[in-house]
Amino acid sequence: MLKIGLLNSVTLFLFFISMSNKPTLHTSLSPALLHLYDLSNSIVVIIDVFRATSTIASALYNGAKCVIPVDSVLKAIEISKSIGGIAAGERDGMIAEGLQHGNSPMEYTREFIENKTLVLTTTNGTRLLQMALDNNADTIIAGSFPNLSAVCAFLVAEKKNVVLGCAGWKDRFNLEDSLFAGAVINRIAKDFTIHCDSSLMAETMYAKQKNKIIDFAPKLTHYHRLVERFGLIEDIKFCLTNDVANVLPLYNDGKLVAK
Amino acid sequence: MLKIGLLNSVTLFLFFISMSNKPTLHTSLSPALLHLYDLSNSIVVIIDVFRATSTIASALYNGAKCVIPVDSVLKAIEISKSIGGIAAGERDGMIAEGLQHGNSPMEYTREFIENKTLVLTTTNGTRLLQMALDNNADTIIAGSFPNLSAVCAFLVAEKKNVVLGCAGWKDRFNLEDSLFAGAVINRIAKDFTIHCDSSLMAETMYAKQKNKIIDFAPKLTHYHRLVERFGLIEDIKFCLTNDVANVLPLYNDGKLVAK
Repeated sequence: MLKIGLLNSVTLFLFFISMSNKPTLHTSLSPALLHLYDLSNSIVVIIDVFRATSTIASALYNGAKCVIPVDSVLKAIEISKSIGGIAAGERDGMIAEGLQHGNSPMEYTREFIENKTLVLTTTNGTRLLQMALDNNADTIIAGSFPNLSAVCAFLVAEKKNVVLGCAGWKDRFNLEDSLFAGAVINRIAKDFTIHCDSSLMAETMYAKQKNKIIDFAPKLTHYHRLVERFGLIEDIKFCLTNDVANVLPLYNDGKLVAK
Repeated sequence: MLKIGLLNSVTLFLFFISMSNKPTLHTSLSPALLHLYDLSNSIVVIIDVFRATSTIASALYNGAKCVIPVDSVLKAIEISKSIGGIAAGERDGMIAEGLQHGNSPMEYTREFIENKTLVLTTTNGTRLLQMALDNNADTIIAGSFPNLSAVCAFLVAEKKNVVLGCAGWKDRFNLEDSLFAGAVINRIAKDFTIHCDSSLMAETMYAKQKNKIIDFAPKLTHYHRLVERFGLIEDIKFCLTNDVANVLPLYNDGKLVAK
């Protein structure tokens, strides 16, 4: 009896030790909330499903040397000129004025982007990445449905704290970024300690929609912006499909490279 | 054929006219996002389910003359002394230092609070109300499950734009406030034009949990703060129960009064 009691206590003790040893995971639902989380000892996953982080995955998957995220069209043009790269970007969903290439993942085929450098500026995703840098993030990666498995494998292997950073739309919450956060949590929750209502919400929403995400998409405000105004239905489908560009974009010294 | 076509066109036209005449409804998931919404021609619903807006409803329902929300303990003490009111409030879930009364809706029984003025300071709810004032909100009311029906009836009757303002926890998103926003939307959506992912999320989460909200509560971070640290399970149940203090707290000239 004493033996069993002791055994149970030891098991319980080891269980709590293993629990407390797990890294934490939080979800930030908007760039305006990112400062609430301690990024300095965390991996930050930049999430901009429609479309920056889907486009970054697509370009790197198709052999781009790297993606340089910048915060202005002017910088995109300057840097791409000086290194012979491709300047690209969008503002409010359209190809930004002064650029020839936009933020569509479909644009960066292997034929076009292999062995080239993409210099990219977008409304939300590149801005969030800059904020993660300003908040001293330990490690920065980029995630979206096209590289879901690569993101999950990296987070589990690294055993560090994680902040899933949703880019939203001009600081407003959006559902597609939260659904991706939910998809990550759905796969890797058991490896993390999660006390975070944002993560609970994201995982619950994802679990409810996961078999019909493309059917759910027409309810999203961003869908209307992209499909009804610009007819970008193929972009939407690509951005919501798991592992069609399954590469890990890791930020290092001003560049996102495939790890 | 032509007649039917004409009739359909007229019906469609009238449908769009009626659609576009509906006021808008948005949900702000955190005080840090409130500035993204135009409050100057909106009714702002302050939502702090655990527990400020549940306590405000409770006090007014039980006959308090009014509730004066203030942003500091010192102000609560000064004002209550000068008018002979009850100073009350919490910091981090506990009765604030220097006060005798806290932020529990159970404390404000009719025997205690009838015909008295409650001067209340809380961590999140009173701060959000101040922010709504600073952003020139047209009208401010307070809502929680105990006064769900009164809030919905007012919003439908007024026919103005609505911003459902979640107080969260120190600017972080919390689920109980979003669930209440979802409960409101679930009841009144047809009277509003809603293009807002936060509202879509809130309503979806509420619709999924509405018959088991009290069973869902232990998953919330705030539940742990209130129940595991302070044993406030009765508070939780009250705050999540529809219409147990069904009064409308309307802000006017520094005071919340029952409309």
